[in-house]
Parts: sequence; C-alpha cells; structure tokens
Amino acid sequence: MSALDPPFGRIAICGVGLIGGSLGLAIKSRWPAIQVTAIDRPEVVAAAVELAAADCGQDAVAGAAGADLVVLAAPVGVNTALLRQLQTLGTGALITDTGSTKRDIVRAVASGGAPVRFVGGHPIAGAATPGIRAARSDLFAGRPWILTPGSDGSVPSALRDLLEGVGARVHVMTPEAHDRLLSAVSHLPQLASSALMHVVGESAGEAGLACAGPGLRDTTRLAASPPDVWRDIAAANRDYLSRDLDALIAALADLRRGLADGTDTALDRTFDSAARWKRALERHFDKA
Amino acid sequence: MSALDPPFGRIAICGVGLIGGSLGLAIKSRWPAIQVTAIDRPEVVAAAVELAAADCGQDAVAGAAGADLVVLAAPVGVNTALLRQLQTLGTGALITDTGSTKRDIVRAVASGGAPVRFVGGHPIAGAATPGIRAARSDLFAGRPWILTPGSDGSVPSALRDLLEGVGARVHVMTPEAHDRLLSAVSHLPQLASSALMHVVGESAGEAGLACAGPGLRDTTRLAASPPDVWRDIAAANRDYLSRDLDALIAALADLRRGLADGTDTALDRTFDSAARWKRALERHFDKA
Repeated sequence: MSALDPPFGRIAICGVGLIGGSLGLAIKSRWPAIQVTAIDRPEVVAAAVELAAADCGQDAVAGAAGADLVVLAAPVGVNTALLRQLQTLGTGALITDTGSTKRDIVRAVASGGAPVRFVGGHPIAGAATPGIRAARSDLFAGRPWILTPGSDGSVPSALRDLLEGVGARVHVMTPEAHDRLLSAVSHLPQLASSALMHVVGESAGEAGLACAGPGLRDTTRLAASPPDVWRDIAAANRDYLSRDLDALIAALADLRRGLADGTDTALDRTFDSAARWKRALERHFDKA
Repeated sequence: MSALDPPFGRIAICGVGLIGGSLGLAIKSRWPAIQVTAIDRPEVVAAAVELAAADCGQDAVAGAAGADLVVLAAPVGVNTALLRQLQTLGTGALITDTGSTKRDIVRAVASGGAPVRFVGGHPIAGAATPGIRAARSDLFAGRPWILTPGSDGSVPSALRDLLEGVGARVHVMTPEAHDRLLSAVSHLPQLASSALMHVVGESAGEAGLACAGPGLRDTTRLAASPPDVWRDIAAANRDYLSRDLDALIAALADLRRGLADGTDTALDRTFDSAARWKRALERHFDKA
C-alpha cells in the first residue's frame, strides 16, 4: 500500500465525542476519500458533520452497515451494548474500540453470540474538555495507541496503517498486559490524585488552600475527574489495581516508618528511585 | 508611608539563588533607591550584581552590617548557622528567612544567645530550575508569602510593605499553624508524588512508561525533587507530616477495601470530596 492509499473505504465511528470526533477529523484530514459515518445522537452527528469530522451519520448502529471498519468510541458500557447489536445484525467489518480496559470487552466479544473480527484498542490521549467541540485532528500525534489482538494474535495491517496515519505510535500487547500496565500508569495515579486532594483539602481547609503552590495543583490535576467513568474502570481492573494500591500503601507506610524512626533510608531510597523513573518517563515524552 | 517610599534603606540577602535572587531583582525594580547587598560565594555575588539583583556583595555575613533588613534565603541548615553568626556579631536589623519550615528556625532564634528581631517568612513560589540565573523579578507576583511573627505577635509594617511591593499576598500565622498547613499542601504532595512514581516505575518498567499519558506526568511532576532538601523538611516537620501520611494511607486503604468488596461507596465518596476540594483550590489560583 502506498502511503497515500486509504487503508479503509468506509469507517463508522460509534460515539463522536472528544476521542471519536478527533479520530474522524484526523482521518478526514489525512484521507479525504475515506467515507466516515458518525453514529451518535442527532445533535452530536450534526456537530460532527459541521466540523468535518464525518461525512454523514445517524443515531442507530444500523448506520454502520457497509463499513469495513467500525470504531466503538462510546463509554465502556455503551460499547458493549453496541457490540451486541453488531453481533445481532451480523457484520463482516473489522471492529475495534477505544475503551480504557481491555479484558472486559474481549470477554464480551467471546461470549456474545455471532463471531466478529475484533481487535481491542486504547488511544492514550485526551484533553480536559470532553465532547465533539473539543475534538482536534492532532489529538493522537505522537501519542501511544495500544492494540490488543484477538485470539489469533495478529493485527490487520490496515488498522495499523490507519492509526499510524493519524500520527499515533502503535503498541501491541495482550488484553491482560494492557490492563496490568494501565493499572500502573493510569488507574493508580488517578486514585492517588483523588485521595491526595481529599486528604489535603480536609487537612488544610478552604482558607489554607490559598497558601498552596503549583506543586499541589499539578499533583492533583486528575482530582477533578468524575466518579462515574472511574467506577467502571476500577471495577473492570479490580485485581491489578488492588495490587498496585497495595504497593503504593506499602511505599507510603515505609516513608511513615522512616519518619518515626528518624532514619532517612526510606526517604532516600524512595526519592532516588522516583527521580530515576521520572527521568525515564520524561525521556519518552521528549521523544514523542 | 507613600506607595513610592522605600520601606527599608539597606537590605542584605544571604543566599542569592532562585528565591534570594528573585527577591533582589523584584526589590531593585520596584525601589531602585534601596541598597541591596548579596551575601554568597564570590561567583554568585558577581552574577547577582551583573543581573542587577544586588548593588554589591561579599562572601561573609559581616557584609550585612549596617542593613536594616537581613533576609536569610539559603538552605535551612545554612540559615540557622547564619542566624548564629548574626547573633554573635550583634545586629539591630530586622531578620527574616525564606525556609520551608518555621518551628525549627523560631526555636533556633530563641535558643541562640543574643536576642534579635526575627519574623519567620516563607514565600510559596518556585521554579523547576534553581540558582541565580533562573531568578525573575515577577516570581512572587500573586503568590502567597507566609509570615510567622515573633513572640509579640506583630509583623512590622515595613516588612509587609516590602513583600506586598514585590507582588506577594501576605498571610500571617503562627509557626505551628504554618508547619501544620505546609505539611498538608506541600510536604505530603511531595512524598505522595515520589512514592507514586517509584511504585509506577517498578510496576510498569522502562518500556511500559512509553504508554503513560500526561496525567501521570503531571501527577509526578514533583518526583524529580532531590532527597537532600526534603530529608531536612521531613525531619523538621515529622509530627504533622506523619499525621497527614496516616490520613493518606487510610484514604487509599479505604479505596482498596471498596475494590475488594465490590462496593463503590469509597470511590464515590473520595472522588466527590476530591472534586469539591479541587474546585476550591483552582478558585484560589484563578484569583491570583
């Protein structure tokens, strides 16, 4: 395939919020010939078409008929319901999704009746504002997009070409490896940030927060996240997340014991390890 | 005093790194008539004079003779040693400092021989890069500057005028209240950020960190901090910091139990509280 050939002829995106809308924008700006259908509520479809994130759309999954790729980009629970409908309708399309956990949707595919071609997906990208109006064609540029192949272990090259074409860096791993990794790099930081803001607020009070510096602000950036999304993610990834929470509690308890003993070894050890991992993390962002 | 009258005639700043250097720059740009003397190593004094953060300087505290305000802006341990030297030399100057904990320096003032006029200080400002070359005249603009008055409970109006003149918002509290508050809004977030980066790095590994998003990056911004500064702060604020660490461990254990039970109440409660405190925190930054 030449770099200019569109990897798909017609793509249906179910759920055109920030992620689905940005994907539509990126696809249409890279390959204007690809027909993009938006599946969402009528007012969202209208906005997607107006912003050129889709050519057309409708508010039922039947609109995905004839697509050769279907992207499920709605909230996780909705994605599972859409998948069931696609299985009932019957489709030859390749199906992928953009959800934050992967073992649950893979289980749903296996247990859901008619067989479909499914490759799980998870773009590691986002913005503070949700919704189609916040969509950007460069949302995925330089960002990771994890793919978890089905039981045959292969990733169709057209899907890889599509995602690399919108600027993403594709990482392939099993659904288990994905959920274990995301527990550490995403789900644990979210719970830690919320727990920290809760504890700091209760201790400092409204007036005390006036004396906070930018360090607290950054450390608690995630603490504005709403519970509904995270309730589902935590439940779907309970086992790995429990293990990582235990490790964080143990690290904090280690620091606490060092303070009580008056020994600096726990603090030195934790800070040295943290600084080393922080440099590794920043190297990845510098490359992106 | 008119807004244009300089509140002091001559100010000595001991330690002209990021904080001391920025204070010198801010004072000289607001009141060129104030004579600022930098006390530091010769090459640092030379840089401070070159950058117009000071008029002159020397590398011994004797250079503070004749100043009517002495600002101790060196690392905490050095500030205490400088204070001893000022007490030995004898000085009629008002003395303040910029250290991150306040009970320890107030104890040092009380136990250190000759009485001096001392008001503890703590500017809540900083930057990623330390040193005189990173100094900026607007470092304190809109930022809190906490003052902890001596035993008579009063803050000299000249000191308040000086700090407000460089743009800071002055908060007055006891050394105990300062240390309790800073444990929550600064010291706990630092330990949490370092512990989180340590645990995430050990779990995800070097390659796994390639799949991290900006949330982890922000949450661990403080994790690059070096242990030496924080060893001293943690030791000086051991009691309050231990209490706050216990509260954070309890909040995380609560989330952990909720995951095990399959109940969402801990997660909902923590996220709702966190989102409410996060809004309160952001309101303060919006006002600044």
